Amino acid sequence: MKNPGRFASPWPAAAFAARLRTVGKTYHDRHPFHVLMNQGRLNRRQLQGWVANRFYYQTQIPVKDAAILSNCPERELRRVWIQRIMDHDGSGDDPGGIEKWLRLGSAVGLKRAELLSQSRLLPGVRYAVDVYVNFCRTQPWIIAMASSLTELFAPALMSRRIAAFERHYPWVKEEGLRYFRGRLTQAPRDADFALRLVIERCRSRELQERAMRALQFKCELLWAMLDAMYFAYVATPQKIK
Amino acid sequence: MKNPGRFASPWPAAAFAARLRTVGKTYHDRHPFHVLMNQGRLNRRQLQGWVANRFYYQTQIPVKDAAILSNCPERELRRVWIQRIMDHDGSGDDPGGIEKWLRLGSAVGLKRAELLSQSRLLPGVRYAVDVYVNFCRTQPWIIAMASSLTELFAPALMSRRIAAFERHYPWVKEEGLRYFRGRLTQAPRDADFALRLVIERCRSRELQERAMRALQFKCELLWAMLDAMYFAYVATPQKIK
Repeated sequence: MKNPGRFASPWPAAAFAARLRTVGKTYHDRHPFHVLMNQGRLNRRQLQGWVANRFYYQTQIPVKDAAILSNCPERELRRVWIQRIMDHDGSGDDPGGIEKWLRLGSAVGLKRAELLSQSRLLPGVRYAVDVYVNFCRTQPWIIAMASSLTELFAPALMSRRIAAFERHYPWVKEEGLRYFRGRLTQAPRDADFALRLVIERCRSRELQERAMRALQFKCELLWAMLDAMYFAYVATPQKIK
Repeated sequence: MKNPGRFASPWPAAAFAARLRTVGKTYHDRHPFHVLMNQGRLNRRQLQGWVANRFYYQTQIPVKDAAILSNCPERELRRVWIQRIMDHDGSGDDPGGIEKWLRLGSAVGLKRAELLSQSRLLPGVRYAVDVYVNFCRTQPWIIAMASSLTELFAPALMSRRIAAFERHYPWVKEEGLRYFRGRLTQAPRDADFALRLVIERCRSRELQERAMRALQFKCELLWAMLDAMYFAYVATPQKIK
């Protein structure tokens, strides 16, 4: 197998970090479906479709983070990483991200039971998410952690999304946006930790390139989820003669 | 494959619980090595051997619990189960069970580095523990949870062990026993939750028998760990002619 990274010098830390950031060019905020959403051009049904499908991704975040935890032999790192599971599952008085997403569902007119039953979940979205969870189960933990670095790009997306919802979808109640607001502080904290760790532990060019590919893979799957939604809710396929 | 459970009626809840408790007959406190320990008949080197080998089991508890978490699709259950990981890895001011075991190591004269390097870890102990982690990764989560029900039998063992240490091994400093004392309250809480859940979810005779086998399997591996220690530290094999 062609693998030039095995014989190349590692990138210096700053160069490696800069390269990781360039992967943000393919982050899903540039996907046509996301562009339509932020431009206020989705109707109620289309916005519901996005919320219902993205919900499946949200439900699998603690599952993939527990898989990473289970593959990580370092107690000190597990003690930090476990916070991600609690952020999404909730703990104590914090309802957690999954619950907040259910409230977003209510705010766009979806019943909890409808979200939980996955009745609107598109196969293409399910496949992309399941492939991600499987990636995190089977890859070395540091590479799985590298795939989480999309959080480097998340705060900018969240800020724009909150503004877009407030401007274009005023019928979505404020309470529905709590998940997005929470991520404004959680994502930078998580991304900062993961970035430093990936840079510290991926010292060979081979590992650095593998971390790059993991991040690219994550961007691709977020993109593929929106492909499925675009086709289901926006595109009008031409009739085949 | 022979599997009479598929066609038999499920045991009523109380009978199932009673059957699970009978598995305690084979709990490792009856193993010759453990009997010697509680009788005060281990010397310093033998006791150190037990602490160093059991340490590997302790380090893998959060790993196997994270695997169970990662296989469990129910957020409400994950929110409870995650406490086990924190009990062993520690969180906030709580140093956690692994750290407490390291202090037990110091109390019996083992350096932290010696425990962490696994230099005294016997292959047979490693195999038994690794098989357990793999079981929890690959079995359905409710069956993996059933294997944790050895905690039903743990508090009685811990009480006797603490008394035995205080009486027979006074040279082990009190601080070293903190792990055992902590388990006196953690284990019943955990066992109570897991027992109710296993009874509630294992409704078919087939699943009930599978839960029984999981608990039996767990008792066997705890026993097998002590077999390896007995052979390494106690038994004097006959010369082979």
